Amino acid sequence: MQPSAAERRPRSFDRVLSSMCTEPHPAARRAAERFLASNPGDPATYGTIAELEREAVAALAEITGLAHTLGGDAADVSSHGYVTAGGTESNIQAVRSARERADVVDPVVVAPDSAHFSFHKAASVLGVELRTVPTDGDGRVDVDAVAAAIDDAALVVAVAGSTEYGRVDPIPALADLAVDADVPLHVDAAWGGFHLPFSGHDWGFAVDGVETVTIDPHKVGRAAVPAGGLLARDPATLDALAVDTPYLETASQASLTGTRSGAGVASAVAATDALWPDGYRREHERAMELATWFADELRGRGLGVVDPELPLVAFDLPRATFEGLRERGWRLSRTGADEARVVVMPHVTRESLSAFLDDLDELR
Amino acid sequence: MQPSAAERRPRSFDRVLSSMCTEPHPAARRAAERFLASNPGDPATYGTIAELEREAVAALAEITGLAHTLGGDAADVSSHGYVTAGGTESNIQAVRSARERADVVDPVVVAPDSAHFSFHKAASVLGVELRTVPTDGDGRVDVDAVAAAIDDAALVVAVAGSTEYGRVDPIPALADLAVDADVPLHVDAAWGGFHLPFSGHDWGFAVDGVETVTIDPHKVGRAAVPAGGLLARDPATLDALAVDTPYLETASQASLTGTRSGAGVASAVAATDALWPDGYRREHERAMELATWFADELRGRGLGVVDPELPLVAFDLPRATFEGLRERGWRLSRTGADEARVVVMPHVTRESLSAFLDDLDELR
Repeated sequence: MQPSAAERRPRSFDRVLSSMCTEPHPAARRAAERFLASNPGDPATYGTIAELEREAVAALAEITGLAHTLGGDAADVSSHGYVTAGGTESNIQAVRSARERADVVDPVVVAPDSAHFSFHKAASVLGVELRTVPTDGDGRVDVDAVAAAIDDAALVVAVAGSTEYGRVDPIPALADLAVDADVPLHVDAAWGGFHLPFSGHDWGFAVDGVETVTIDPHKVGRAAVPAGGLLARDPATLDALAVDTPYLETASQASLTGTRSGAGVASAVAATDALWPDGYRREHERAMELATWFADELRGRGLGVVDPELPLVAFDLPRATFEGLRERGWRLSRTGADEARVVVMPHVTRESLSAFLDDLDELR
Repeated sequence: MQPSAAERRPRSFDRVLSSMCTEPHPAARRAAERFLASNPGDPATYGTIAELEREAVAALAEITGLAHTLGGDAADVSSHGYVTAGGTESNIQAVRSARERADVVDPVVVAPDSAHFSFHKAASVLGVELRTVPTDGDGRVDVDAVAAAIDDAALVVAVAGSTEYGRVDPIPALADLAVDADVPLHVDAAWGGFHLPFSGHDWGFAVDGVETVTIDPHKVGRAAVPAGGLLARDPATLDALAVDTPYLETASQASLTGTRSGAGVASAVAATDALWPDGYRREHERAMELATWFADELRGRGLGVVDPELPLVAFDLPRATFEGLRERGWRLSRTGADEARVVVMPHVTRESLSAFLDDLDELR
């Protein structure tokens, strides 16, 4: 007989190298457990969690540079974003708002071919055309190709930490194009957003032309799932998403879902309280150092490695070795070009990567 | 200074009469806490939670009568549904699948004016026309009005437990119309689904013509948020939602979100293991008895009361009294017709409703 759900245990993160999820910060876990049954989608009933959501948005506004551009007027920040179910909802909503505001018959979204598959989902759900443009040999979008595609677009997407290679598109150049063409620029920093404040990239609301940003507390931010973030420079972005809510004691709702997770919201506040900025900076430095070391180790074994820009390492690995490693319990996944891909999340340590390399050596 | 997120406490459910959320079952809470960091959206990495999701779907298939119509072939049940973020996602996805499968230029969804606002959200997101039809004087859809509106529809929606009055539409009659017109019928039992197996209604997959059902474990099912359910008679319904997922070790994803909550899935299994069928039956009987008593008490005070069909009581209440009760900490909300509305959830007791009536008496 199967053990009951109450007895089964989740996979330990020890050998998880493929995921952008991680073990929540202890303070985030405690907050999540406490607010498991509060619904931020019903703020008139659950006031404390509604207040915590404002704080979560304020923290994300700080991290993405939005608070600074607003002159630190934190009182208003809640009209500039909300806590989503994750990067997919954030990206769908950014596209949806752009569609509403463009008000054309056949809206077009321009996105690099490195954009997350949630943009394909968004295009399918929302009935917009996704016009993908190629990336250059190093995995960043070809700016000239965007220039050629932008004219009639309702939105341009830039990727700040691509899912497959951790690459950051040249956001200032894309923003210049977007401003010239009067098209909003959306930055998908779902995974990268908690690294980028420390990596030296220009990526957030500090860049003129960046209108919306996706940034997920439940990835590198170490909140509990589900805690994504959508931030907007202009409150009209969120207004365009609002749907009337009869029977709730609030007038409208901008989220894609209805009932939402108090665990996600409360844990996002607890995690950012505990870690912003020093804890995230330390994690960024630790993870980059580890990724660089790991890339060197792989190179030393004669494997082709994509140089890590953020802590994500893609490398050539024969399919049989890949399967052998999965059989030994390693969870890693592949890029579209069939490289192996290791995401150096907070739970990934020098010890676990050393054990991985030992297994790799045995299998080759 | 504000207490930190780690110190703040959620609202107790003592005075919450407005919500369709409730305290999770203790076993559900434990399962949620354990699977907080597992992602059912990535089954190749998180195998245990993927297995639990199959069990959650199997339980929902049992409750909605789908398992019986499939001849108890539980091995296949996971192609018939998945655990969503909640009723809104389930309803959006049911509409989306109908839109894809209808393959017409301007899809129309026919729904009663009692349908949840998520159908308005779905129409806005998906670009379909929502053709609302009136309800009769008692809050159930007017079947003749549906008959007059159904011909070119891509989907007909029936409500099995309306958000405002807890009313159940005449589903067999609607299903007959739907079968005749060759239009799929979707039943929104987000809240009602865990009462209906015990209430004597004909509502689920036992009724020919019912093609999809929304049923939320995180409401009366006593799972933790977020745990919604979408079930489909025909696996093609889910196939129509699938989007390719490069970089994940699985080929496609039918959910609207990407990363999903392991807490929701694991707690849905734990709750249904603990409560189906006897626990839910007892709760249905307890809640109906309490709702009937409460309605009688209100009537005894000379207030107009909508007779409860499921455990939800709407009643006339002057606005000033409503506000006075909210000031005393009671969380109740209003219908569109400005009645007060009390949802008799598992956390609502005779004691709490007596205290509410005492406050009501003082304020009148």
